[in-house]
Amino acid sequence: MAKYVFGVDIGGTTVKIGLFSVEGELLSKWEITTRTDEGGRYILEDIAKSVTEKMEAENIAKEDVKGVGMGVPGPVREDGTVIKCVNLGWGIFNAAEELSKLLGGLPVKAGNDANMAALGEFWMGGGKGYLNQVMVTLGTGVGGGIILNGKMLAGVNGAGGEIGHMQIDDDETEVCGCGKTGCLEQYASATGIVRITKRELNNTDKPSKLRNIPYISAKEIFDAAKEGDELATKMAEEHGRRLGYALAQVACVVDPEVFVIGGGVSRAGDILIENTKKYFTQYAFHACRKTEFKLATLGNDAGMYGGACSVLS
Amino acid sequence: MAKYVFGVDIGGTTVKIGLFSVEGELLSKWEITTRTDEGGRYILEDIAKSVTEKMEAENIAKEDVKGVGMGVPGPVREDGTVIKCVNLGWGIFNAAEELSKLLGGLPVKAGNDANMAALGEFWMGGGKGYLNQVMVTLGTGVGGGIILNGKMLAGVNGAGGEIGHMQIDDDETEVCGCGKTGCLEQYASATGIVRITKRELNNTDKPSKLRNIPYISAKEIFDAAKEGDELATKMAEEHGRRLGYALAQVACVVDPEVFVIGGGVSRAGDILIENTKKYFTQYAFHACRKTEFKLATLGNDAGMYGGACSVLS
Repeated sequence: MAKYVFGVDIGGTTVKIGLFSVEGELLSKWEITTRTDEGGRYILEDIAKSVTEKMEAENIAKEDVKGVGMGVPGPVREDGTVIKCVNLGWGIFNAAEELSKLLGGLPVKAGNDANMAALGEFWMGGGKGYLNQVMVTLGTGVGGGIILNGKMLAGVNGAGGEIGHMQIDDDETEVCGCGKTGCLEQYASATGIVRITKRELNNTDKPSKLRNIPYISAKEIFDAAKEGDELATKMAEEHGRRLGYALAQVACVVDPEVFVIGGGVSRAGDILIENTKKYFTQYAFHACRKTEFKLATLGNDAGMYGGACSVLS
Repeated sequence: MAKYVFGVDIGGTTVKIGLFSVEGELLSKWEITTRTDEGGRYILEDIAKSVTEKMEAENIAKEDVKGVGMGVPGPVREDGTVIKCVNLGWGIFNAAEELSKLLGGLPVKAGNDANMAALGEFWMGGGKGYLNQVMVTLGTGVGGGIILNGKMLAGVNGAGGEIGHMQIDDDETEVCGCGKTGCLEQYASATGIVRITKRELNNTDKPSKLRNIPYISAKEIFDAAKEGDELATKMAEEHGRRLGYALAQVACVVDPEVFVIGGGVSRAGDILIENTKKYFTQYAFHACRKTEFKLATLGNDAGMYGGACSVLS
């Protein structure tokens, strides 16, 4: 019986790798550089090398390893096919099969990184114990991952759970990174809340301690809100309204037990959950109004956990 | 090996019952009255009696029947628990278990009627051959059903696929039957397109043949559009815009292979599909833009087909 499993989370600058017990204990973790030159052709080779070295160092035989699961920053089909991954320079190919070959046939699963993070939180994090959940990752962008009956919803085009690009405002004039306007990401991400706060600071002359900060971040907005700054409070509320509104629409589609909120912005904590829940309750279809909200607990390790979990399920 | 399966579709006035082969052939179908008096307490008894009589008439033994699947006009959990069903007078109880008891232990599945219709179209209708699909039923209201990897998504509160109550307009002043405002149902249902057309007729003085019709229906609007009536064409376009917009949001969540459009309004045919697809393409996240659109083919029998299919899967 295999005792170990590897979880890999490929980012634009570093690849996080974790060695787990099949029970879900993170035994050790490390990082390697993401070599994006030459169309990212060395990334999988580097991962295979690093995993192999670890196995040798820890005296782990191939038959002791259940497999390797990896999260990729782009759309991935259920069979492991990556459909372009701009940050890595990748085109369309089956990354799971490729890494498996490099690892001498070890089973490999691949998925979108936000979906993998959702699976990680489901397995060992804030969503543990809930079979049906939607995770939202509020970082530079807004990622989403959907777990139904304990399985990840990859989507036919690898766009399952791409809730950051649901349109929630029809009057937005600025363009989202995806080319559309009014996407959730433009309001609920770290850059999103900064964007709407700057807009508010420019359009009004309300006093605010944020006016004295040269480079405003999401953290500073939520911190100022917690300290009672009126303009920051309004912005935190607006953030919760936008997110609560979008999740109310998501609930009409997949009707989950719980929403798990993660990513850097979620460090704001209770204030974010309370605001989001308040507006979700207001906007949601009556049958879904009591859906729970939880904070993610695995932080930046969620993707690795999810990778590991994907091999086990 | 069981050779037969029953599909039941409970409506507010009649219950449709079908006897199917396990291969999906509808062998015979009939209707009984839905007795909604006394809190709908006789409905399941009447169904059990009718199914039993059919089995006796056709000389079908209990072991020849795989089971009975029924669609219910309200939210139903995966385990068959109905969570209030206003049209039938039902409260909260496990309708599947109840009917199974009345049928001497025959396996029974229950689901929301729109979800069952989706399963029916997946099995033998417009969505045949697609493992991942979203069906939209455009009738008096707007129902939705989601099939993922060939399985129905019931939702934790039985509200999976309740896309008729996604909010798609933030400025709507009239209230939807669900108590919210701006729901898709208020624009894309039969009553919805009539409502927005009447509004347009009242607010403008544009000429239109619809002005000569005392009681406008969805059919008349689409017929007039097909004949080139300018105002009706605008309304058919607006209908497609609203529906296409909503489905673009749905695609960001579950990313299906195909949308199957059914219900009375879908008899409008190609004009409805073309308009919807045009706006879907415009609003959708880039990865999902090529999602297919199909018309449902089973008409009012879809629910029965889905009921039958639910027992087999």
